Amino acid sequence: MMHAVVYHGAGRMSWDEVPRPVIEASTDVVVRVDAVTVCGTDLHILRGDVPEVTPGRILGHEAVGTVVAAGSGTAGGIGDRVLVSCISACGSCSYCRRERYGLCQGGGGWILGHTIDGTQAEFVRLPFADRSTYLLPPEVTDEEALMLADIGPTGYEVGVRNGRVEPGDTVVVVGAGPIGLSVIQSARLFSPSRIIAVDRATARLDAARRFGADIVVDNSHEDPLAVVRGLTDGFGADVAIEAVGTNETFELCAQLIRPAGRVANVGVHGGPATLHLEQLWPRDITITTGLVDTYSTPTLLRLLQQRLLDTGRFVTHHFALHEFMEAYDVFARAADTDALKVVLSR
Amino acid sequence: MMHAVVYHGAGRMSWDEVPRPVIEASTDVVVRVDAVTVCGTDLHILRGDVPEVTPGRILGHEAVGTVVAAGSGTAGGIGDRVLVSCISACGSCSYCRRERYGLCQGGGGWILGHTIDGTQAEFVRLPFADRSTYLLPPEVTDEEALMLADIGPTGYEVGVRNGRVEPGDTVVVVGAGPIGLSVIQSARLFSPSRIIAVDRATARLDAARRFGADIVVDNSHEDPLAVVRGLTDGFGADVAIEAVGTNETFELCAQLIRPAGRVANVGVHGGPATLHLEQLWPRDITITTGLVDTYSTPTLLRLLQQRLLDTGRFVTHHFALHEFMEAYDVFARAADTDALKVVLSR
Amino acid sequence: MMHAVVYHGAGRMSWDEVPRPVIEASTDVVVRVDAVTVCGTDLHILRGDVPEVTPGRILGHEAVGTVVAAGSGTAGGIGDRVLVSCISACGSCSYCRRERYGLCQGGGGWILGHTIDGTQAEFVRLPFADRSTYLLPPEVTDEEALMLADIGPTGYEVGVRNGRVEPGDTVVVVGAGPIGLSVIQSARLFSPSRIIAVDRATARLDAARRFGADIVVDNSHEDPLAVVRGLTDGFGADVAIEAVGTNETFELCAQLIRPAGRVANVGVHGGPATLHLEQLWPRDITITTGLVDTYSTPTLLRLLQQRLLDTGRFVTHHFALHEFMEAYDVFARAADTDALKVVLSR
Amino acid sequence: MMHAVVYHGAGRMSWDEVPRPVIEASTDVVVRVDAVTVCGTDLHILRGDVPEVTPGRILGHEAVGTVVAAGSGTAGGIGDRVLVSCISACGSCSYCRRERYGLCQGGGGWILGHTIDGTQAEFVRLPFADRSTYLLPPEVTDEEALMLADIGPTGYEVGVRNGRVEPGDTVVVVGAGPIGLSVIQSARLFSPSRIIAVDRATARLDAARRFGADIVVDNSHEDPLAVVRGLTDGFGADVAIEAVGTNETFELCAQLIRPAGRVANVGVHGGPATLHLEQLWPRDITITTGLVDTYSTPTLLRLLQQRLLDTGRFVTHHFALHEFMEAYDVFARAADTDALKVVLSR
Repeated sequence: MMHAVVYHGAGRMSWDEVPRPVIEASTDVVVRVDAVTVCGTDLHILRGDVPEVTPGRILGHEAVGTVVAAGSGTAGGIGDRVLVSCISACGSCSYCRRERYGLCQGGGGWILGHTIDGTQAEFVRLPFADRSTYLLPPEVTDEEALMLADIGPTGYEVGVRNGRVEPGDTVVVVGAGPIGLSVIQSARLFSPSRIIAVDRATARLDAARRFGADIVVDNSHEDPLAVVRGLTDGFGADVAIEAVGTNETFELCAQLIRPAGRVANVGVHGGPATLHLEQLWPRDITITTGLVDTYSTPTLLRLLQQRLLDTGRFVTHHFALHEFMEAYDVFARAADTDALKVVLSR
Repeated sequence: MMHAVVYHGAGRMSWDEVPRPVIEASTDVVVRVDAVTVCGTDLHILRGDVPEVTPGRILGHEAVGTVVAAGSGTAGGIGDRVLVSCISACGSCSYCRRERYGLCQGGGGWILGHTIDGTQAEFVRLPFADRSTYLLPPEVTDEEALMLADIGPTGYEVGVRNGRVEPGDTVVVVGAGPIGLSVIQSARLFSPSRIIAVDRATARLDAARRFGADIVVDNSHEDPLAVVRGLTDGFGADVAIEAVGTNETFELCAQLIRPAGRVANVGVHGGPATLHLEQLWPRDITITTGLVDTYSTPTLLRLLQQRLLDTGRFVTHHFALHEFMEAYDVFARAADTDALKVVLSR
Repeated sequence: MMHAVVYHGAGRMSWDEVPRPVIEASTDVVVRVDAVTVCGTDLHILRGDVPEVTPGRILGHEAVGTVVAAGSGTAGGIGDRVLVSCISACGSCSYCRRERYGLCQGGGGWILGHTIDGTQAEFVRLPFADRSTYLLPPEVTDEEALMLADIGPTGYEVGVRNGRVEPGDTVVVVGAGPIGLSVIQSARLFSPSRIIAVDRATARLDAARRFGADIVVDNSHEDPLAVVRGLTDGFGADVAIEAVGTNETFELCAQLIRPAGRVANVGVHGGPATLHLEQLWPRDITITTGLVDTYSTPTLLRLLQQRLLDTGRFVTHHFALHEFMEAYDVFARAADTDALKVVLSR
Repeated sequence: MMHAVVYHGAGRMSWDEVPRPVIEASTDVVVRVDAVTVCGTDLHILRGDVPEVTPGRILGHEAVGTVVAAGSGTAGGIGDRVLVSCISACGSCSYCRRERYGLCQGGGGWILGHTIDGTQAEFVRLPFADRSTYLLPPEVTDEEALMLADIGPTGYEVGVRNGRVEPGDTVVVVGAGPIGLSVIQSARLFSPSRIIAVDRATARLDAARRFGADIVVDNSHEDPLAVVRGLTDGFGADVAIEAVGTNETFELCAQLIRPAGRVANVGVHGGPATLHLEQLWPRDITITTGLVDTYSTPTLLRLLQQRLLDTGRFVTHHFALHEFMEAYDVFARAADTDALKVVLSR
């Protein structure tokens, strides 16, 4: 037996005793969880917003751990210290062949803590292990690596690469929560001339500066459009990256970009947005959406290893593994606690 | 003096006697108009929908003609038979440098029949002549070349290239008017496995088949979503190209594509559209908009010369130059006259 | 037991009785060979030019067959009619993740008839079956599909895609053997304005015309450089594709392209080539090399199914499976027999 | 009259009194030279290696200056402080339309100090001024901007962009002279995980470290292949950039890259190189060559303005404008003087 965070329907979860997972397919591994975190998506699930998650499900889709059992068809070995990616990949479907693992049609994609049991537990079973876990180099700590399970590649892939950030660009990031900060940090890798962060919370704007924003705009009382146009001879930004998930912030992004600019949507939306095609149709714009694929995980690990990324600074609060209720609470009240990411360690 | 189609405010135009244009800058040429056509945009202008067009303006942005005067700073010579592109290009601004001539910041872009006098006249002055006219090879007729002034590159650039049509793709084109037909014709250049045309008019769907559609869907009584999903194992199209300009057809396009698919908007929109981000955020889609740049005109001319494009089939009605009132009428009543493109020749 | 073509050292092979293959790993299938062909590479092996192939090895890396046994970790089922790709893919290594299956570091790549037993046999074992075999639609014949085991994707990927053929391009293909013909055929998918084939054999140039070349040049007595420059205002071709494998033909390709042109090398070379950097350094050229990855096999199958490719015309000679010695002989004497591809069927 | 560096045939030049240039075409400007430098190419010319340069020619293709006369067809005005690019662009030919200004067919390309009089003078006439000069922001000094006339964009475009440097890559730069240092500096903009510089001179390797190399290899006594393979699990570098111009260094680059790697040639070559296609044909490599186009000049200026580039550190020696003989001498004896770039100022 082991302990795990079990979902019991909207608003209810507990740290329960449940059976330890075992190898079910030759491509599985079972991992002892050494470090694990809580994602904004977990809060959505708890609110009952993600109906595919049914009562009894163990939550969590991010972890660093140690392999304790490995199927015959896996390349790794017992004792390996691995990053558990939030995305699993069958490796054979038409999407996996093009590194679109988040859209896997062969039983992968986002499954952990969603359609199968997840990582907020003492042990977790991982399907398609060779394409869903990454051996960790000794130079990176559990905590640093853990930030690459989800928010690292999400910011890099869905924000920066989809937005095609280039040297010299003016980049606006709307929303400076953990995902927005990850976007800011990884946009720096491409040497834009300016990163402008927009948010309504002073604490988040302070964090944005620390993570690499050159200019911050508090849109509770400043007009981001005026600021961006003022900085760009009236043209607008090359790229605007939406990291909130509301109609207002999406519309703002579409306004902020110059002709031929790009909007990369990273935010999770609960409703439709208005697209002002009567203005945008002749402006040569590109809009992208996306779920993370984690194709960039090996690259980001290499950058972390060479100290070209600093992911440790995401972690604001530490807990022991059994303190999940408290960790969820601190994370859910981020506005009060200034939590970015919480880490629970064995 | 000469005759020209002069706009006199919403709903009013006439074939007036006006002064012949002369060279104003060293980069100008003046061209005698040999063949000219009417665009859907001209009808918009006539309705008063394009406020930048002021009374007194000569309309028209497409022509084939013969150079009768050339500024000292132009490469061509008197007597040259040229295609007059709908887009003029200064060649020096940041947009022109990247072949985004439609967004020219240096006095070009769509100016003919818009902010300066246009081509529906016996003579027309063309600024930036070296980047706004194209010498015609003898193998192509005036009429064939004329179709590359606007609809040829619009379909190819804003539809097919923005939509990144690839060999083997399933492509849906929503709207089978002249622009939609141009999209269908130029999509063929990339060997998609199937082109599906969607429209509500039988005559346009018949034309779609002639221009290269494999399958046609009459969405007055058939469900395009069901057809496309049925053909694609439930996934959807690789690319959907919007060639109507309404919210309904744009929303349809966003529904028709598979995860990781592309929507290329070609239609001119008069109002906003609804973007269902609550469904689309995790689907890795790309949406593009655009005004034609005409960067592809040399390529399309080469294809026409080698008979890899057949643009002559767009032309359904012929008129003499002075029959503009009748030509506009036939074109405006396309639903009754089955007009695709009308040509007025000297 | 079964029969198979067994290599016995340079110059020696025979149709021997050998053990039937069995499933060795959960990701294997065993296939009954229904149609199989001989590749130019097999002739190289027979000459002793490929030292990794050791005596006792069953040759062959192309087949169409029927699954007779399937490991527990495979998606397909017994009775499936499949294309056997010349390339196997582990699906997890850094190369497979980017569709570079030909460079697989996890035990795949070109292994069949090379480092493990191949397809010139009554039965063959196929590792990594989910990423190395393709279920065939009923509309395509065995023979048509067989041409997509190797030469189809080789011409398309290493020639046409690496060479970035675009609508309107002038494309030169040097060498009109089976691979050159495959290049010509698949270049057509992108609507170049002209394809020019260069070879020294009249029969091959006749074939080039049938496969889609617009112009053929017999370089035993014509100067390809003069022809290409004559057709391109002295500039040269946009793309030159080398499909022979000699220094002379490679140098010719580098001369044939215009400034900013591309050379895609497809040929297998036995010695070094001279690269005239003293001329080429300022000309903005791109040279690519490559082994086929077969990432395009699903696309090519779709095109075949929709009759946008005609691969049946590669097949010039038919044999029964046990007539391998005769088939090799006819194929090896292609200059006399006019053989393009030979097919042996069950 | 004015003074200028005049070429008098191989080995001979002098600081002569010559006529001051005047506007010849409406697109010309004349600039007073405020800062100017000497390029390695100027030394080649002096040796007589560039036969297009004829006696009587004023040398030099890099400058910062002040506009003193402007043709009627230019956008700028008298008094403008501008960067004079080493490349002029007609803006209309098929190459200029695609930002390949270095290959301009309309009278531009590298013309200054080559086929028309150059910048090593008190005044210089500049054709196609709108596309060959760049207005300077006040934040950048003459000296800093001057480094963007040639070596800045050469390293960025021909080295880094052609080599497609990506975050996390291992990049080797062979040759650490001024161009190699420019490559190193601009490769940093894309956050490779490691830059390895290879040279035979200790002083240049020290400079390489200052400009951003992580590892330096003295190939007079170390084996770069062993070092690079040791750092990359035996695979090789993602990108190797040749910045010397010899057969040996080019062959080294081709050896240093991993399968699917890229070689970007920046060096000026006087003879052919050997390309080991017998090894490289199946390795999926890409080789590029190129003359600088200076399409990136606006981007690099923006990065300089925001202090994301530091070009001032190239300048090792300062002279007054009339001290050209001495400046050439110091630059030509760089091995002794440790000169990187010399600047002559008004």
